[in-house]
Amino acid sequence: MRSIGYVTPQTMHFAEPLRLQSGAALADYTLMYETYGTLNADRSNAVLVCHALNASHHVAGEYQGQPKSTGWWDNMVGPGKPLDTDKFFVIGVNNLGSCFGSTGPMHTNPASGKPYGASFPVVTVEDWVAAQARLADRLGIVQFAAVMGGSLGGMQALAWSILFPARLRHCVVIASTAKLSAQNIAFNDVARQAILSDPDYHGGDFYAHGVVPKNGLRVARMVGHITYLSNDDMAEKFGRKLRDVAAGGDYKFDFGVDFEIESYLRYQGDKFSEYFDANTYLLITKALDYFDPARGHGGDLAKALAGTRAKFFLASFTTDWRFSPERSREIVQALVCNRRSVTYAEIDAPHGHDAFLLEDPRYMDMVRAYYQQVWLETATAGKGAATAAPSIKAASGKEHA
Amino acid sequence: MRSIGYVTPQTMHFAEPLRLQSGAALADYTLMYETYGTLNADRSNAVLVCHALNASHHVAGEYQGQPKSTGWWDNMVGPGKPLDTDKFFVIGVNNLGSCFGSTGPMHTNPASGKPYGASFPVVTVEDWVAAQARLADRLGIVQFAAVMGGSLGGMQALAWSILFPARLRHCVVIASTAKLSAQNIAFNDVARQAILSDPDYHGGDFYAHGVVPKNGLRVARMVGHITYLSNDDMAEKFGRKLRDVAAGGDYKFDFGVDFEIESYLRYQGDKFSEYFDANTYLLITKALDYFDPARGHGGDLAKALAGTRAKFFLASFTTDWRFSPERSREIVQALVCNRRSVTYAEIDAPHGHDAFLLEDPRYMDMVRAYYQQVWLETATAGKGAATAAPSIKAASGKEHA
Repeated sequence: MRSIGYVTPQTMHFAEPLRLQSGAALADYTLMYETYGTLNADRSNAVLVCHALNASHHVAGEYQGQPKSTGWWDNMVGPGKPLDTDKFFVIGVNNLGSCFGSTGPMHTNPASGKPYGASFPVVTVEDWVAAQARLADRLGIVQFAAVMGGSLGGMQALAWSILFPARLRHCVVIASTAKLSAQNIAFNDVARQAILSDPDYHGGDFYAHGVVPKNGLRVARMVGHITYLSNDDMAEKFGRKLRDVAAGGDYKFDFGVDFEIESYLRYQGDKFSEYFDANTYLLITKALDYFDPARGHGGDLAKALAGTRAKFFLASFTTDWRFSPERSREIVQALVCNRRSVTYAEIDAPHGHDAFLLEDPRYMDMVRAYYQQVWLETATAGKGAATAAPSIKAASGKEHA
Repeated sequence: MRSIGYVTPQTMHFAEPLRLQSGAALADYTLMYETYGTLNADRSNAVLVCHALNASHHVAGEYQGQPKSTGWWDNMVGPGKPLDTDKFFVIGVNNLGSCFGSTGPMHTNPASGKPYGASFPVVTVEDWVAAQARLADRLGIVQFAAVMGGSLGGMQALAWSILFPARLRHCVVIASTAKLSAQNIAFNDVARQAILSDPDYHGGDFYAHGVVPKNGLRVARMVGHITYLSNDDMAEKFGRKLRDVAAGGDYKFDFGVDFEIESYLRYQGDKFSEYFDANTYLLITKALDYFDPARGHGGDLAKALAGTRAKFFLASFTTDWRFSPERSREIVQALVCNRRSVTYAEIDAPHGHDAFLLEDPRYMDMVRAYYQQVWLETATAGKGAATAAPSIKAASGKEHA
């Protein structure tokens, strides 16, 4: 399989205010994004890939001179890959409130001249979609071939199908849910409380104090990470293995590291606390908690999805206990109630929620087959042939391979 | 059902050093305990009840003048209750390292004249059992009718059956496991890291600083509490209910409390952080992590249990995802391999791990029936008749009802 090669992130500034679901507004904002592949003549082969909690616009490829900078869904997106950039024009966009380039809490609030910090408005999945729609407008994309995402990204895809039914032909929702459970919210709140109660958080204004609430972020990530892995997978990978087998393999009888799993989790926590922004973490967990499209319809998801026009592909993973298959089946059921076209794959995979990011042949083959169908439809409707027709040059982020 | 009435905790001091599994030793120590019912003439009707994470010697009854001081297993232990104190002499003992009376980190280290703090030695389930055995010696109890516990208490019962096979006729293990899984350890380590990284922890010497690592304890308790409840039960009790429905029932778009589940968990965390000791929490989670009797037998639990002589009763709860029924079945299987007598009840209950503390008629009836059998054996062997024979006066903690 060929690599997508080097990619370059781009930015686009939006001067018009964005009114948010909360009633607040962002006076202006910038979105960071990347594109891969080539937009065809009639602009019908665009696919928007929405990111989850700690990911970004950098979906695929790598940055020149940074060999470890591979995009987070590089196994999914690229030439010859399931979402084939030889056929599709793929866009990755960083969400508002993130810490990876789009306007977020660490940027200057034009109203105060200081970093937003905790005053950055709470944004929702629907707000993100509204911002993404403006980016699509500016890129001249009236209708996406597909909008796609996993986990929180899947919620965005679902929100697209509800908010802008005519603007996507396919909606691809992987390992996601139509709303968080009480247990999901509980885990998110533990993470938030760990951050909010860290003295280095300084009410969100830690930038001014030259510190970062690392301890809080670290604990937040550790607890989150447990929910990404399956119990079985953790048992198999770590079990009760001790870290320092060389040291005689006995317990240490202190509060340092005894078990491999402790070492692994602390490492994940440490790493995360060095690059992720605490305010962003708070914002993103809140967007997760708030997502509930059925809420405005008396809790009836079928009603919430009644206006959708896309065809749907959903996938879930048997050992995912964060967003279990049952949660995907609820969406499938609501779509079937509405006589929508829906393809659903329940993949028997051991890796828990993280499976949506991993290489699993059955999973990848399903997505590949689905996009081949999307491509056939696009081409049959005289909308394909990206390589044949003289194409609009991708606005940015073109391949350097 | 009659109440056990008022009870009084007692203490017993042990001047001889206790060598611990770690190689360290406690020069001397005190155990706090309570007893209920009357020890019969041949001292054959004693039942030891071992406590779990945040409980204590105060198993049943209440303290005079403190109407909210009901013991943690008062629904299980008392006159006419499943573990019937009209028949059995029941002992509850607080474990070493606890913060409820027995020698622990907040007590003075005789070697330094200062509170132990983090220098309190790491104690194991086996160390607790060794300390409990000395208490039994001093109370003149050569053999218990039963040793019983739920969760971490069940581990102590199991350890009794291995370490002192001749000293118990029955071993009652509820909602427990023969070892923690990687996921269990992971949750414990999140809790520990929350405490250890709280600046108010001061390396364990917070007593000297006049502070308590409340934030760390709070997060530790919140994450622990999630694992005590079942997903279904949480969904039913809390679901996505908002806290302030009066306020229009809309989201608040800040990081305060939106959902009932957040309010509940934060309340549990706050309450816990006001009475529980941080060093004790660290010690107890470590005792949980370390318990693994099969470890000295190449991981073969059947071998670890080969020397046991007790009859066993085990119970588990279908929605307990902390120590799932599968973990109890592993113990049952290992016992069956050894041709031990074992009764096993898998209770279809919605309340997750917490079910072992709650009133469930099927569960309570099973335990009651089992203890009736224990009592019949005790009486048939000419060992019963606590009410008929002139009994040794309970050493302490006698009923005041």
